[in-house]
Order: sequence, then C-alpha cells, then structure tokens
Amino acid sequence: MPVQPRTPPGVMELLPAQQIAFQRMLDTIRRGFERFGYLPIETPVFELSEILLTKSGGETEKQVYFVQSTGALKQGGATNAPTPPELALRFDLTVPLARYVAQHEHELNFPFRRYQIQRVYRGERAQKGRFREFYQCDIDVIGKDSLSLAYDAEVPAVIYGIFAALGFGKFTIYINNRKLLRGLLDALGIAQDKHAAALHEVDRLGKQERAEIEQRLAAIIEPTAAKRLLDLLSAHTGDSGATLEALRRFETPNPVFTQGLDELQRVYDGTLALGVPASALQINLSIVRGLDYYTGTVYETFLDDHPRLGSICSGGRYDNLAEHYTKSKLPGVGISIGATRLFYQLLEMNLIGADTRATAQALVLNVEPPLALEYAAIAAELRAADLNVEVYGPDDKLGKQFKYADRAGVPLAILYGAREREAGQIKIKDLRKQEELTLPRAELVARVKALL
Amino acid sequence: MPVQPRTPPGVMELLPAQQIAFQRMLDTIRRGFERFGYLPIETPVFELSEILLTKSGGETEKQVYFVQSTGALKQGGATNAPTPPELALRFDLTVPLARYVAQHEHELNFPFRRYQIQRVYRGERAQKGRFREFYQCDIDVIGKDSLSLAYDAEVPAVIYGIFAALGFGKFTIYINNRKLLRGLLDALGIAQDKHAAALHEVDRLGKQERAEIEQRLAAIIEPTAAKRLLDLLSAHTGDSGATLEALRRFETPNPVFTQGLDELQRVYDGTLALGVPASALQINLSIVRGLDYYTGTVYETFLDDHPRLGSICSGGRYDNLAEHYTKSKLPGVGISIGATRLFYQLLEMNLIGADTRATAQALVLNVEPPLALEYAAIAAELRAADLNVEVYGPDDKLGKQFKYADRAGVPLAILYGAREREAGQIKIKDLRKQEELTLPRAELVARVKALL
Repeated sequence: MPVQPRTPPGVMELLPAQQIAFQRMLDTIRRGFERFGYLPIETPVFELSEILLTKSGGETEKQVYFVQSTGALKQGGATNAPTPPELALRFDLTVPLARYVAQHEHELNFPFRRYQIQRVYRGERAQKGRFREFYQCDIDVIGKDSLSLAYDAEVPAVIYGIFAALGFGKFTIYINNRKLLRGLLDALGIAQDKHAAALHEVDRLGKQERAEIEQRLAAIIEPTAAKRLLDLLSAHTGDSGATLEALRRFETPNPVFTQGLDELQRVYDGTLALGVPASALQINLSIVRGLDYYTGTVYETFLDDHPRLGSICSGGRYDNLAEHYTKSKLPGVGISIGATRLFYQLLEMNLIGADTRATAQALVLNVEPPLALEYAAIAAELRAADLNVEVYGPDDKLGKQFKYADRAGVPLAILYGAREREAGQIKIKDLRKQEELTLPRAELVARVKALL
Repeated sequence: MPVQPRTPPGVMELLPAQQIAFQRMLDTIRRGFERFGYLPIETPVFELSEILLTKSGGETEKQVYFVQSTGALKQGGATNAPTPPELALRFDLTVPLARYVAQHEHELNFPFRRYQIQRVYRGERAQKGRFREFYQCDIDVIGKDSLSLAYDAEVPAVIYGIFAALGFGKFTIYINNRKLLRGLLDALGIAQDKHAAALHEVDRLGKQERAEIEQRLAAIIEPTAAKRLLDLLSAHTGDSGATLEALRRFETPNPVFTQGLDELQRVYDGTLALGVPASALQINLSIVRGLDYYTGTVYETFLDDHPRLGSICSGGRYDNLAEHYTKSKLPGVGISIGATRLFYQLLEMNLIGADTRATAQALVLNVEPPLALEYAAIAAELRAADLNVEVYGPDDKLGKQFKYADRAGVPLAILYGAREREAGQIKIKDLRKQEELTLPRAELVARVKALL
C-alpha cells in the first residue's frame, strides 16, 4: 500500500497557478525594496540554538523547532540532556539579522539597509489560517551608535510603493511614536508600572467601543486620567494635521513627550516629502505595537476595505539590535510584511488569483508528429525573440491538446501542419477569444508579439 | 559577555554584494525555466518523516535532519521511541515533487512541467566546499502512464539557454542513454550482476587513465569483453555523429540496445532542432549517473575550461516518480543545478563577484541637512522614473558620504546644495569615472538615465 501523500499541518502549499500569483507578489515586494536601494541578504534556515535562544522567555521562543541530524539522534540525542539540540529553525528574521550584523559588522557599510525575503518557522497550534511555515518580507536600517530619523520616514514610503503596486485596493499606513505615548502617560501622572496595561487598552481604540475601553482603563489608572488619556488620543483621529496641532497645545509637556512629538512630526513630513499621499498616511495615536521592543516610531498598515485582516505590515524603531552578540550600539528601524498570511487571506476572499496565468505565452501544438523537429525550431525562433514558449510533446489528438492549453491558461496556440507548411503559412489561435488566424510563416514572431 | 555571533558550519552566508550576484544567478536560472513555460512550485522545508523516508536505505537518507517542536522535546521527544520525530527537512527536491504530484494528481495538467528553486538539507560531514544547506534548481516533466521523448530533448535545451545566459564561459552538455549501455553490456555477454560494477568503471573514462580502468574492469568481467567495451565506448568521443554511426554498425545488437540507440539519436536531433549548437552538445557514452534511478537518457554538464568542477548540472529519465505515494505510473525526466556549490566554486576562482554592484543606481547625498525634504522629493522623482535610488540619511561630512557611496558601489551621486538651488541647477557625480557635471535641475531624470 502506498503512503498517503500529504503535507504536514500548518503549511501553505500552492498549485502552480496560485504559485505564479504568489511569486508575482514576492517579486513586487522585492522590486519595491530595491527601488529604495535596500540590499538583499539571506541567512541559513537554522541557527545555532545558543544564538537563537539568547533572550530567555518570550511567546515566540516557546514555539521553536529544533533540528537534529540522524547521527545526533542515534547517539541518544540531546532530549534527555539539560541542553537543547545544537540547531533550531529561525522564528523571525530579526534575530538572524542581529546575528548577521554583529558577525559581519566590520564588513558592512553603515547605515546598513537590508531586505530579506525568507520563510520562518513557528510551532503554532494547528488552526485554519495559522501557519507554522510562512514568508516574512523585512526591511531594516541599522545605524552604528545612532540612526538618522530620515530612515523612519523612508520605511513607510517603501511600504506605500509596494502596496500601491500590489493593487489590493486602498490602504492606510498608520504611524505613531512610543516616546510620545510614554511622555503623555507620565504627564498624566500614570505610574511606570501601569504603562503596559494602560497601553494595552489604548491599542484597542478603534477596534472596540470607547466606553468599554474607558471602563477597563479606569480600573487600571485614575478614572479622570483614563478619560483625559482617551480624549487626547482619539480627539482628531483621521486628521493628522489636527492631531499634531492638538498635541502641540498640550498643557503639561515633558521632555520625552516633546521629543516624541517632534519625531512624529518629522517622520510625517518626511514621508510626505517622499511622495506618499496624505490620503495613505495617517497619524494614529492608538497604534502601540509590542510592548518592549519598540522605542520610537511605530507603524501599522490596514487595507481600508478589509480592516478585519488586521495590520498587514507592521514595525518600528528600536534602540539596540544586537546587544546579545556585540558591544556596539546598533539602533534600527524596520518593518515586516507577512506575505504568506496576507496571500492566503486574499485568496480566501477571492481578491487574488483570478488573473493567474501560465508562464508560457504560447504553446506550439503537436499537430503532426513527423513535423516535431519543425515545432522545436518554431519554438526556438519565438524564444529568441524573448517569448516564453512551450511545445506540446505527446502524440495526442488535437482536442486533448487544446484541453491541456485551456487548463494551462496559455493565451496563444500555434498550429502548423503539412498544409500550412506547403503554403508557407502558419496558424495562431488566440485561446482567450477563441479566434484563429492564418498568416505567412515569416510573420509569426511579429504577430505573436502583437497579440500578447 | 555577548554570545559569539556565528553561523552553524556548512552553510553559505553571503555579504550583500555577493548576495546580489547570487540572486542574479538564481534570477537567470528562473528566467531560463520560464522561457520554456515551466511552472513554479514550492514545497514546505519539512515533510512528514513517514513520507520522506519511505525508501529505506540510501546514502542521502542517512544524512536527514529531523525537526521537533519545543513541546515534543519537553514530552521526552521521540528519540528513545522506535519511531523518528514526525518532521524532517527535505534532502532533495525529487521526493517532495513525488509527494506533490501524487497528492495533487487530479488538479495538475499532464505532462506536468515544473521548476523548483529551493534549499535542501543534508547532514554532510563539515568540510570546505561541502554544504549542509544548499540551493537546488530543478526542472522535471512528469507524464501520466507515458512521457514523450520530446521532453528528453527539451531538458538540455533549457540548460543550454541558462548557461549561455549565465556567461561562465564555454560549456558542454553530455548526453547518453542507460538502455544503450545496458543493451551493450548484455550483448557483450556481461552478466546482469556485474553491470553495476562495470558501469562504475565506465564512468571513470575521461577522468582516469584508460589502462588503469581497463585493468580494474578486467578483474570484474572477461578481459576481452573489457577491452571491447572500452573500445566501443570511447571510439569517437567528441564526435557525436561518428559515435552514433559506429553504434549503428554494432554487429550483435539486441532490442534494448537498439531502443537505447534510437532514443539517443532522437534526443540528440531533437535538442539540436531546439537551437542548441552542436558545439555545446555531445554524445558521451561514458556518462552513467547514479546506478538505480535513471533508466533512459542521462545528462551531465561541464564547464570546458574547468573540468575539475565536475558536472555542474545533471539528470536523466526515470520510469516512475511516485510509486510510494500512488498507484499511477508517472514517468519523468529532469535535471538539477546545484546553485550554491557552483556559485561558491566560481567565487573561489574569482570568476564571479567582481562586477557586483549596489541595488541603488543613484545616491542622493545629504549635502545640507536643512534641505532634507528636497532630497526626499528628488529621490521620489527619480524613483517615479523607474530608477532605484537611495537617500543618505545621516548628517555626516561629505567625505564620509562619498566613502559610503564608494563602498556601496553606487554608480552615481546626486549633489544639491543652497548654491545649486538658487541657480536652478543640480550636480551628478559619476563615481565610476570620478567625473562631476552640473546641469539644470529640470534635466536631472533624463541625464541620470542617460548616464546609467
């Protein structure tokens, strides 16, 4: 009995037509990164466990996959030993970046601007739409000792270019600043140890009813401070200019608040100067992101017509990338597109995939098998003219060949039999319109190009 | 103390300039596959162990990496159990293809022509030039029940297009046929159980001294048969036409021999008809490939000036792809480029990498920080014209900025200060020639395009 062929749970495996659509999405993302001169890197799928797990704790690290060679397994493995196996699969692209930058520090050009499009691995509970293997498409700019705020403004411009090119409909990039939030909480007399819990509620603004949020917040901090905080943060949502102006008028600013506000203003202005329209960029003071990592600018991105997808692209500024691997101070700013999840969701919503096609632009049919070498020559001639061309190999009836062409989604079929050969002609069938035309053999390349 | 940042042994991690060159190589390979209308697929990095290890034995399978989630490890893992862990990393792209085709059999269009460019994993002994993680770039054509020989002729044509485009110098694709060899051994009275050992020696023709090979071969089979076999196989090496002619004159052909010869002739003619020059395609009767898997056509590819690299691209025809996963008979033909090893070797030989550049075509310098928003606008204007442009962010001295540009390998720098602004001008410095020119601001885009 054969083994039942199947993939492990939690992976996205696509049929070729979908794969073409997915590849086109990744290509667009890559082009968008290179448009701004970001440099590619790739890191190994596994890192030394010692490297990957330097930070103890963290939800993500509980989901790590360890890797063991057959040899190690036979030696009894390391499962009973106090140390984990030597290798583990990367669970994001940030830890590998930190290791990479620390390792190659003296060979890199700072500010180091890298992009990375690779899969990452998390032992998530298997569940529809949750992936154990998924693509992340990241950019980060890493400075040595310091990093210009110009890069905080550049990151949303890169993202704007990409989502405009992807064509998934209208979208908005939301920006905020963690210093501004921290300063504001301090200014409202909210104790440091309440910040995390308070920001957790702030993060829900726009997603839940204000009254509910305020009620829960009032259980954490002074009710008057809770009301004041939510008033301030939601006063001018949707109008970045008015939001900035209102913040400028805040009565009891402290230095952290003022620095955060200043940064936010500069990032906002800088992003607009890079050509991002104000309709796609919005200051939103309820954007918080993860609680420890980010220290300044933070980003989220939403499809305007599909807010339920959640943020499809998020990131921010952090103080020090690689403290576990180097004594150098390496501040950075970055953002990540979770391409697998996004593609899967758009596919489920039928917003992607309908226009997928074959990689071949024309299929030379095997009309009369004795002419096979001529079909090869016809294909070679078309390929030399930069066209993607397939030749149908089997000696099948024409009906079966056309069925193959239809399923493949090839736009054009080329037909050439003894009759055409004698007349110095050839036929092209446009399978999109079911139109057939006969033309002089010598005009083939030009006519195929014109039809595509 | 920080942890020493380092990669695990046996992986190829590149600096960005090399990564750009490697990416260009992969892009060329992909374009070559798509030129012939091959369809992309990607499979998960791990497969169920049950799937991956259906074939017992084999050198490769001894090198498998198993994958275990943290949870499984905590439960004591599976190392003491008789069954291995649930997941394992793929060690080639053929087993995943077999599983994919069997799993999606009813959704695929046959003949199914797929390309796949992904990394594979083998627990090799760590050693210079041996990789535990490396890219394979594969094409295969899979038929249902039968597969036209036209695809055996297509495979070398795809490879020819790719290596011609890669520009690593002159190369030759060698073809042979396993049926022909088998028939010949039978005809010379060599017992079936001696075939493997005899072919092992045949495989050394052209790599070792003929006398040595003949001596060893004479210890396996009749000395007269050994001499006769080597005479026949090496008679016309380098002249495909003469080789075919000599085989046609073979006195005691059997049906297997004749079928093999006929196939070889048709594949040779078919490949030439697809536009491959005879100078790059050679029948070589000593090409054997792995002993069990291939059953008809076999391929190897060598760089003419670097025979020591060994075959840089190999493959062949096989009878049944997925017998472990389906009862359908799925014959196939395929070939594989080991991109990581090839790139590494060319890099070591300084045959690659010298022309690597930045992804950015121009760098806008931060000449006067108060003009930062104008630099953003200049970059946006150039990007809108399809150019890859970077803006230098930090407020550094110009000397430092030029040093960054030099190290990055950006061809052009754009300079714009208060003086240029007043005069309605802008400067471009061609960093390749160290030439600076001043031009009207309005002409920037056109001039940058002209310079690149």
